[in-house]
Amino acid sequence: MKFEVTILGSNSALPTTKRFPTAQVLNVLERFFLIDCGEGTQIQMKRFRLPMSRINHVLISHMHGDHIFGLIGLLSTFALQGRKSDLHIYGHSKLEKLIRFQLELLETKLDYEIFYHTIFGTNIQTLFEDDSLIVQSFPLKHGAMPCAGFLFKEKERLRTLKSDMLSFYNIPIKNRHGIKQGDDFICDDGEVIPNDKLTKDAPKVRSYAFCTDTAYLPKIVPIIAGVDLLYHEATFLKTEEKRAKKTYHSTAEQAGKIAAEAKVKKLLIGHFSARFDDLKEHLEEAKNIFPNTALAEDGKIFSVELDRD
Amino acid sequence: MKFEVTILGSNSALPTTKRFPTAQVLNVLERFFLIDCGEGTQIQMKRFRLPMSRINHVLISHMHGDHIFGLIGLLSTFALQGRKSDLHIYGHSKLEKLIRFQLELLETKLDYEIFYHTIFGTNIQTLFEDDSLIVQSFPLKHGAMPCAGFLFKEKERLRTLKSDMLSFYNIPIKNRHGIKQGDDFICDDGEVIPNDKLTKDAPKVRSYAFCTDTAYLPKIVPIIAGVDLLYHEATFLKTEEKRAKKTYHSTAEQAGKIAAEAKVKKLLIGHFSARFDDLKEHLEEAKNIFPNTALAEDGKIFSVELDRD
Repeated sequence: MKFEVTILGSNSALPTTKRFPTAQVLNVLERFFLIDCGEGTQIQMKRFRLPMSRINHVLISHMHGDHIFGLIGLLSTFALQGRKSDLHIYGHSKLEKLIRFQLELLETKLDYEIFYHTIFGTNIQTLFEDDSLIVQSFPLKHGAMPCAGFLFKEKERLRTLKSDMLSFYNIPIKNRHGIKQGDDFICDDGEVIPNDKLTKDAPKVRSYAFCTDTAYLPKIVPIIAGVDLLYHEATFLKTEEKRAKKTYHSTAEQAGKIAAEAKVKKLLIGHFSARFDDLKEHLEEAKNIFPNTALAEDGKIFSVELDRD
Repeated sequence: MKFEVTILGSNSALPTTKRFPTAQVLNVLERFFLIDCGEGTQIQMKRFRLPMSRINHVLISHMHGDHIFGLIGLLSTFALQGRKSDLHIYGHSKLEKLIRFQLELLETKLDYEIFYHTIFGTNIQTLFEDDSLIVQSFPLKHGAMPCAGFLFKEKERLRTLKSDMLSFYNIPIKNRHGIKQGDDFICDDGEVIPNDKLTKDAPKVRSYAFCTDTAYLPKIVPIIAGVDLLYHEATFLKTEEKRAKKTYHSTAEQAGKIAAEAKVKKLLIGHFSARFDDLKEHLEEAKNIFPNTALAEDGKIFSVELDRD
């Protein structure tokens, strides 16, 4: 019952040998979502042993090179590996143009189909939904460049049956779905077994929000409120707040503020400028505002466990 | 007086964590030529401490992704670094289309100019020439895909002056160029000092040939005859000769044969299939035919020293 994110790249525009440009894989119950795809993403997926062929959904926040230049290589590798399963790509309408142009010019033959889903970027938009998960995008603030944040949220689960009590009361299978939904059970002799004797609370829904690239943007707080994990960019330190504002990026302190205001459980900061070799100051600065902060460095895995309170 | 090639990527289409796709930097007398530019090239240049900003010439052998997908990232990085100096790109006419489309769609602002030079691919073609170096392309055989090999050759140098003899005979500066070209010197008293007393032989010209991707193609032998270093692809082992032929690649043995027939000084083999973790067999197979063979693995540097015989 995994819900975990693996960081493939944590740097901003200029990659370093230690930190590749932005890319992450979120594993939700063995469904794998690739979020952004900077140059070298496919190499990082091999390095960190992620099952490349099981990526069925790729979400791209915006059309800056450090978030997309690994995509054409990944698609070509899928083709060489004989991929057959559909691939869904979510991003700005230009992304479809970019990929189609490249595949056509290079005469790349795909045995799989790509479905392009346009992120319009003006409102909250549902990108993907099934019985157990919903994925939405919401607008960030990155100057003239439309940029989307992403919110992954499990859906409410039904209550969990207590298997020992089911067999004790010999409850027929046909009644079980109702009991999961909260029904009591009435025995043949009329005795009513209250639901809380037969079930326990469902695990809490888990959630992840991904916010990069963006200037400090308090209006995202209600959207990401209470998430278990928040990835927020922290390109700069507080000493460069002006530069952050000018380039529509955030400081580590601002990332901490957003996390604190949104009352998230844990903050991951990333998208570091290549000028910083050591990231201790970023971590300290964010922790001063929001103590439960971690550096989202390449290769790190952050999990959210199932929790029934 | 360097003449050395640094291997940035030695793998074929699918990269591994150890071996990136094809890219090399040739340093000829502190002029830096980038040859092919697979995904991750800019990261490898940082890893192996090559001066990225001094790349003024990029040569692309053919339009397969594993030889080009790093280029747009490199051009963008140049832009971010504030590059001003011209960049010359040599390749198939589609390469210009690909780059122009991407730069335009992504609205990448360059403060430097790109000059595109089309490789026509049917004949030997001079791509670059100055006082001391000539760079030519020649056609390889890679199925329907036009593919160019590259030959880098220093030009003949003038003879080297013996400085002690120049001062001994007190030879005026105005005479020195003629003496370098082979003139004798006539002293004021009429004594003739023969040229070989004043000069020694110039160092021999150095040369490098780059041949990938290609099927076994003996007709390149006269073109690359006698080069100091030959890089030749060896995607497969002899046991897969049929597959090599079908996919227009070479085996390690065939690379060895070309080296032997062309009487080169040293053979470097590369463009290995990702299926091979260990490359001992490739090396052995090529060495059986041409003993002075080395594996062109990522990060290795191969130099040609100045030699006066």
